[in-house]
Amino acid sequence: MSGEERTIVGPPAGRDQPRFAGFRTFAKLPRRQDVERCDIAVLGAPFDSASSFRPGGRFGPAAVREASMLLRVHNHALGVSPYAVAQVVDAGDAPASPVVPELGFAAIEAAAAELTREGARVVGIGGDHSVTLPLLRAADAARGPLGVVHFDAHTDTDDAAYGSRYTHGTVFRRAVEEELVDPRRAVQIGLRGTRFSDTALEQSAQLGYRQILAQGLDVEAAIATIREVVSGPTYVSIDIDVLDPAFGGLSSTPEIGGLTTRELLALLHGLAAPGIEIVAGDVVEVTPPYDPAGLGALAGANLAFELISLIALQR
Amino acid sequence: MSGEERTIVGPPAGRDQPRFAGFRTFAKLPRRQDVERCDIAVLGAPFDSASSFRPGGRFGPAAVREASMLLRVHNHALGVSPYAVAQVVDAGDAPASPVVPELGFAAIEAAAAELTREGARVVGIGGDHSVTLPLLRAADAARGPLGVVHFDAHTDTDDAAYGSRYTHGTVFRRAVEEELVDPRRAVQIGLRGTRFSDTALEQSAQLGYRQILAQGLDVEAAIATIREVVSGPTYVSIDIDVLDPAFGGLSSTPEIGGLTTRELLALLHGLAAPGIEIVAGDVVEVTPPYDPAGLGALAGANLAFELISLIALQR
Amino acid sequence: MSGEERTIVGPPAGRDQPRFAGFRTFAKLPRRQDVERCDIAVLGAPFDSASSFRPGGRFGPAAVREASMLLRVHNHALGVSPYAVAQVVDAGDAPASPVVPELGFAAIEAAAAELTREGARVVGIGGDHSVTLPLLRAADAARGPLGVVHFDAHTDTDDAAYGSRYTHGTVFRRAVEEELVDPRRAVQIGLRGTRFSDTALEQSAQLGYRQILAQGLDVEAAIATIREVVSGPTYVSIDIDVLDPAFGGLSSTPEIGGLTTRELLALLHGLAAPGIEIVAGDVVEVTPPYDPAGLGALAGANLAFELISLIALQR
Amino acid sequence: MSGEERTIVGPPAGRDQPRFAGFRTFAKLPRRQDVERCDIAVLGAPFDSASSFRPGGRFGPAAVREASMLLRVHNHALGVSPYAVAQVVDAGDAPASPVVPELGFAAIEAAAAELTREGARVVGIGGDHSVTLPLLRAADAARGPLGVVHFDAHTDTDDAAYGSRYTHGTVFRRAVEEELVDPRRAVQIGLRGTRFSDTALEQSAQLGYRQILAQGLDVEAAIATIREVVSGPTYVSIDIDVLDPAFGGLSSTPEIGGLTTRELLALLHGLAAPGIEIVAGDVVEVTPPYDPAGLGALAGANLAFELISLIALQR
Amino acid sequence: MSGEERTIVGPPAGRDQPRFAGFRTFAKLPRRQDVERCDIAVLGAPFDSASSFRPGGRFGPAAVREASMLLRVHNHALGVSPYAVAQVVDAGDAPASPVVPELGFAAIEAAAAELTREGARVVGIGGDHSVTLPLLRAADAARGPLGVVHFDAHTDTDDAAYGSRYTHGTVFRRAVEEELVDPRRAVQIGLRGTRFSDTALEQSAQLGYRQILAQGLDVEAAIATIREVVSGPTYVSIDIDVLDPAFGGLSSTPEIGGLTTRELLALLHGLAAPGIEIVAGDVVEVTPPYDPAGLGALAGANLAFELISLIALQR
Amino acid sequence: MSGEERTIVGPPAGRDQPRFAGFRTFAKLPRRQDVERCDIAVLGAPFDSASSFRPGGRFGPAAVREASMLLRVHNHALGVSPYAVAQVVDAGDAPASPVVPELGFAAIEAAAAELTREGARVVGIGGDHSVTLPLLRAADAARGPLGVVHFDAHTDTDDAAYGSRYTHGTVFRRAVEEELVDPRRAVQIGLRGTRFSDTALEQSAQLGYRQILAQGLDVEAAIATIREVVSGPTYVSIDIDVLDPAFGGLSSTPEIGGLTTRELLALLHGLAAPGIEIVAGDVVEVTPPYDPAGLGALAGANLAFELISLIALQR
Repeated sequence: MSGEERTIVGPPAGRDQPRFAGFRTFAKLPRRQDVERCDIAVLGAPFDSASSFRPGGRFGPAAVREASMLLRVHNHALGVSPYAVAQVVDAGDAPASPVVPELGFAAIEAAAAELTREGARVVGIGGDHSVTLPLLRAADAARGPLGVVHFDAHTDTDDAAYGSRYTHGTVFRRAVEEELVDPRRAVQIGLRGTRFSDTALEQSAQLGYRQILAQGLDVEAAIATIREVVSGPTYVSIDIDVLDPAFGGLSSTPEIGGLTTRELLALLHGLAAPGIEIVAGDVVEVTPPYDPAGLGALAGANLAFELISLIALQR
Repeated sequence: MSGEERTIVGPPAGRDQPRFAGFRTFAKLPRRQDVERCDIAVLGAPFDSASSFRPGGRFGPAAVREASMLLRVHNHALGVSPYAVAQVVDAGDAPASPVVPELGFAAIEAAAAELTREGARVVGIGGDHSVTLPLLRAADAARGPLGVVHFDAHTDTDDAAYGSRYTHGTVFRRAVEEELVDPRRAVQIGLRGTRFSDTALEQSAQLGYRQILAQGLDVEAAIATIREVVSGPTYVSIDIDVLDPAFGGLSSTPEIGGLTTRELLALLHGLAAPGIEIVAGDVVEVTPPYDPAGLGALAGANLAFELISLIALQR
Repeated sequence: MSGEERTIVGPPAGRDQPRFAGFRTFAKLPRRQDVERCDIAVLGAPFDSASSFRPGGRFGPAAVREASMLLRVHNHALGVSPYAVAQVVDAGDAPASPVVPELGFAAIEAAAAELTREGARVVGIGGDHSVTLPLLRAADAARGPLGVVHFDAHTDTDDAAYGSRYTHGTVFRRAVEEELVDPRRAVQIGLRGTRFSDTALEQSAQLGYRQILAQGLDVEAAIATIREVVSGPTYVSIDIDVLDPAFGGLSSTPEIGGLTTRELLALLHGLAAPGIEIVAGDVVEVTPPYDPAGLGALAGANLAFELISLIALQR
Repeated sequence: MSGEERTIVGPPAGRDQPRFAGFRTFAKLPRRQDVERCDIAVLGAPFDSASSFRPGGRFGPAAVREASMLLRVHNHALGVSPYAVAQVVDAGDAPASPVVPELGFAAIEAAAAELTREGARVVGIGGDHSVTLPLLRAADAARGPLGVVHFDAHTDTDDAAYGSRYTHGTVFRRAVEEELVDPRRAVQIGLRGTRFSDTALEQSAQLGYRQILAQGLDVEAAIATIREVVSGPTYVSIDIDVLDPAFGGLSSTPEIGGLTTRELLALLHGLAAPGIEIVAGDVVEVTPPYDPAGLGALAGANLAFELISLIALQR
Repeated sequence: MSGEERTIVGPPAGRDQPRFAGFRTFAKLPRRQDVERCDIAVLGAPFDSASSFRPGGRFGPAAVREASMLLRVHNHALGVSPYAVAQVVDAGDAPASPVVPELGFAAIEAAAAELTREGARVVGIGGDHSVTLPLLRAADAARGPLGVVHFDAHTDTDDAAYGSRYTHGTVFRRAVEEELVDPRRAVQIGLRGTRFSDTALEQSAQLGYRQILAQGLDVEAAIATIREVVSGPTYVSIDIDVLDPAFGGLSSTPEIGGLTTRELLALLHGLAAPGIEIVAGDVVEVTPPYDPAGLGALAGANLAFELISLIALQR
Repeated sequence: MSGEERTIVGPPAGRDQPRFAGFRTFAKLPRRQDVERCDIAVLGAPFDSASSFRPGGRFGPAAVREASMLLRVHNHALGVSPYAVAQVVDAGDAPASPVVPELGFAAIEAAAAELTREGARVVGIGGDHSVTLPLLRAADAARGPLGVVHFDAHTDTDDAAYGSRYTHGTVFRRAVEEELVDPRRAVQIGLRGTRFSDTALEQSAQLGYRQILAQGLDVEAAIATIREVVSGPTYVSIDIDVLDPAFGGLSSTPEIGGLTTRELLALLHGLAAPGIEIVAGDVVEVTPPYDPAGLGALAGANLAFELISLIALQR
């Protein structure tokens, strides 16, 4: 992100247009094609055909955009107005096939890679968690293995499921195998729930991930651990089910006993640290058909704004 | 609408982009600012502060756009592919104040008038039925009083309510008083429900409106009546509550005993007649918070497509 | 209902109070205790502990009252403004025990009997269909066996279920046995759905009920049959599931293939006939927890208004 | 289906068990493994990864089974108590991979083929409409090309979509190409809605399908056409979206202007004709997350019961 | 509130009437017109036409009354049975025009002022937060500027929005300007969320409000602050969105990261302090159409009961 | 539970069957009749006719089973894979009459007693809380008065309601009177909410129950208290409304200010203590019609798994 003189196009002022009116780009930001260049790009990854239980995440980007109408422009906790210091755009949705997963992944990777080549940092909006793999591939091309801060109820380090090695439950194993992620610089936070076996957690730890469980979570200690483990170019992946279902953690596989939004916001604010350079991230698993009060979409929109703010803060 | 050579921009092919992906312009049509000129413009009128019962119509345009993702491009019954023969655009939402109704009406009129001046025919998406008045004013400026085909459970010819002469229940009285509508060329179809007094229907008839009740409706006879009464430049206003609540007639003031979607589609197809020139129209009162299955939004999107098709057919 | 001079208290004028404001008595009518006497009384029977499948009908009266806020005062089809020609009141809810059915029935009968003794004709709002039995007992005391027009998907003439002879499926057998109903003057309309045996319909016919099936229903023919069979003092019982689930027939045991609201309204209007004296009636089985769009409550409120209108018309 | 002496196991009597209690096999029928042999088998096909719009059909079988608790045992219109004349079972769900469509199809075909080999006629419960292809393959093995009665808003005869030739929109083209279906003995009923091009309907007709549109549908004429066209071993496929969304036609791609349940029931009853031998069928596209009132599931359960009844009637 | 001998009319005993039965006055309390005088009055303010995002608050009073059926009569934490020590009534709804905001405000002020003149302390039920201004005007007439305890996600101290100086976002600026509130005795609690600018919080602080943010909230410290700042005649305004959306904070503009109900109850119990005299209060922004589980209404009913209890405790 | 050699049948491996497929026994466990003997039995108690407010708990067992599809097999916090060390089965639903409560209770007691005689420990799934009485009777027969850990917002120690001594609010008084419970070994946890009188809590304490309020709950202290008070054969009853409504505490009588799922899980894990032998338990009051996001069912399934795990741990 260079510092040359240029005009930044932000959302229309609330005074000009009621918040409920207008096209549903994320936060009413300009589309990618409406501006010459961009620093940060929101990219929809409407793909849910690698989910093992409830589908519907394909409508996550639309729901998050709708909920983003409620967002304002200033992040008080982080002290930044991201749209004022960076050109943020909505790059639309990757045209991901729902029927042929490999085509779906390729479309997401291509869309993210193009934005990355243009100099943008991509904040992906899923879609089920499998979309993180193509997003990581795109983010990673020029940066070497990335650190990861992975908020989730699940480790997502299974080897395969239902005949496929590419599902929403295998992405963080594949990411290590493909050397997209440096697991020594990676933390998984919010883990909980029933497990497929007594070694499920260990398998992830053996890959190298540091683990922080939801039960007994101490926010300050967790931030300290993150800052200790994670450094350098980093990817932040937020599975909405890191949140308790009460707070909108209504993913394809929700788990009780999760985090509150206050805890998650505090953890994210803790990522504003000198050694951590967020190069991309995502908010995934918002699953609108199972979210009657729109809590997941509302949380998702706010969490995307936090990621954008963290990236903008680095400028 | 002239016939000179020019390129028409339609929606992206379904092959290029899954229907659930992409920005939510109506039917994925280009925005007004994305093309040089337009023949037909969809305009959101997200205003519901003149509704007497259930609010929420301000989210009607967004819900109709979301449902329009399901629309394809060809109208079989009318034999027309409207986006191929006319430049149809989504002109976004008029920035209507929800707090100061007169400002709201002014914003809607201004947005519609600008499109009309550019040569476009406007299909408005409400919002409560009060938005028809500014839309009529804009449509009418250059055309003299218009004929009207008004689909509704209610006559909307009250004089005033709750201290205002401008509500969703007074619009067709005001339209006559302002000489926007020629009531001798106007039909109201689908009337039913309890009434405020035994003269409620008469008051509307005294203004000049021909009336067709829902109870005992005969589709063929109704089409004959419409064609007999209506002629010349005509405005078509569809209050979603002309439909039975079962079929999505979940307006701010729903009434049982309404039309089926098959009946309403047949009536609309009957408007494709030599003497009727549709210069503008609207679909109003889709009220998403009271529409858990999205039936009103789905019907609204299809009805807007029928209006667009009817206008395109005239080219 | 005598004809002496007296003041009738109706709902407040819509001009004085928005329809969404104010206490939720039925149609904003006065409570029983607010006026000296009454001609027609709406009585809630919030009892659902004799339902064989979905409970929730205990909240039917509250939901019908809430939906009745949408009702206006004039019945156009019947040509009557009932609150102007009769003192109509909301008599509140019978305090029916949900745990001890016999106490529940007794409370309903007592409340209805008291109103009947005061000269009022009672329009009951259920509650599951078992509440019709105590309502019939109260209506019947002074009038001998009544004719019945029974709108329902089911005959409700089982002998017993789940250890009880008093359930929502046995009420029209008990009513014959208790000589509350004269089955030679009784019609059941809207019957359909799967049956417990191949003789289910016959058993009801053997009790004497004339039967009109939903499949192949002809409204005019049905009215003719009703007028042929039914005469004298008559009870009209409307199980909301006579309507198709699409139109709000979301009772404790809904059945597909039901009537439309237009058909049901037409049938009810056909009851305005010289030989039929409606002495009481009910609308039952509105089951709010299974009615996300409120269609059953809206239909229920309108149907109660039709019953009130029919009774008022007889004055 | 042989006629030897044997005991048939039906559902428990309603007297023994309240309808809301007990395991959720279809209509509380025995599971396949609970009886020695079976004549008719309900088979869940919980697969929705070939749907082009709304997913969620994978929960269709569970929702249909839940709604089937309301079913009783006798079909009055057809005059048959199917569980008394045929051993009907619930064969559970095919373990269809949601991530690898080809594995999903194979699992469905294998499960249906095994039942067919055992002499059972299979009534499949989808799942999106793509599941009809493996069900047809299984049904067809020993019978040669089948006649088809196909109830649907769509022809489902596209060639490909989103990179795949096997989607819920291509199944009836593939079925002809694979010679599973004899299109000269095939009818499509209920077609309507916007189209991808002006030749969409023709393409299906060119494959040989006779077509009956929803708009202007005449039930008696449609039955006559079906009986004229269809004969011999026949497959009946019911896409729930042949119904209007109001009546539960809430598939992955719903269309307004559809059939009522009364119309569809009458059409199905018309299939009880000498020349038509129903060898298998399905009810597909029930999509629970988009069906807040459960109308699609309720219709689906009843429609499956009608298919079972039609097959039982042939014994 | 005088101490003379008189009979207090409370709700009917639960033994006499099931909680789900009976008219929906708040907590089944008598209406204003049913008793001679009153000490505490619940007043509905069903007005939502000054809301900037989601409307629907006009149905807040009805939803809160419905949820209040679950309330019992004794407040254990505060040690008071308010209906036994004070005559509490439900004064119904102010007849607020939804179309002409100034008429709406006038109606609310008039209704509250009349109750205040009669000696009652008013607990208002919104409606959007703009209703607090007329409620404050009525409460303030005889008492001079009031202290304020303001629970909210937002400061509501904007100057204007959408062409109006009187919206749900400007009320606490207007209240200072009109000298209804003494900002030196005023605290705002629960502030959070994105902001329109980096000075949004400061603008409110410059008006004089003490501010307590949701993030990092310490209940004991907050109570200490309140007791330090607030004294004398005090108004307590509870915007339901002080609660996290998870706990029912589903206002017209919900914000994640909010308070739990346990925290809010503890804070309210902290208001039972010698120096704080609560003269009136409100619970606003309950927005039923966006509250599918009724959490906001349930919380609202309980919070209103807490306000009533606090006032009753002062007697 | 003996230690002899035998094969344990667990759920099918997730690899063999997608989690959303297959019959809905609890956690896909075998039915009682599918295995020779069992150690732990899940028993549905679908009875809600003794509930004082919202009915619908009769569908609790079905909803909990549906949600249990999400459960995996290993309990990490307790370190046990219960289905591997004990034969756990789903014993189906007791056929409880909804119309005659005494028959309902008898059916539940009979079903539980038979399982107990067979050596199984029963985990009941309600149903309203009244089902705990017959479950306790069955559990108690051979063990003498039991200790109780009772998680609930309410004490459920009323004497009678609505004419009955057997309701969901009287069960823990009856249990003492019938000497099923030894109140000196009994704790009630999570108490809160409005009360019927100022002595409501005391009445329960006078029966002997130790009480822990929700307000100010300290998890560690609560566990210490439980371990101090409770010992020997113990029954664990979890009313879902011990949880805050936000977390799924959507019982027939929900109360704000409740526990989080993290707190409840920690408390349950604290029951794994040497002196406490859990002989049976239940999860009651899951009320699906009032639980639009399925939070109560999801919590209920997990809580039942915790009870099963605790019992399995004792082997």
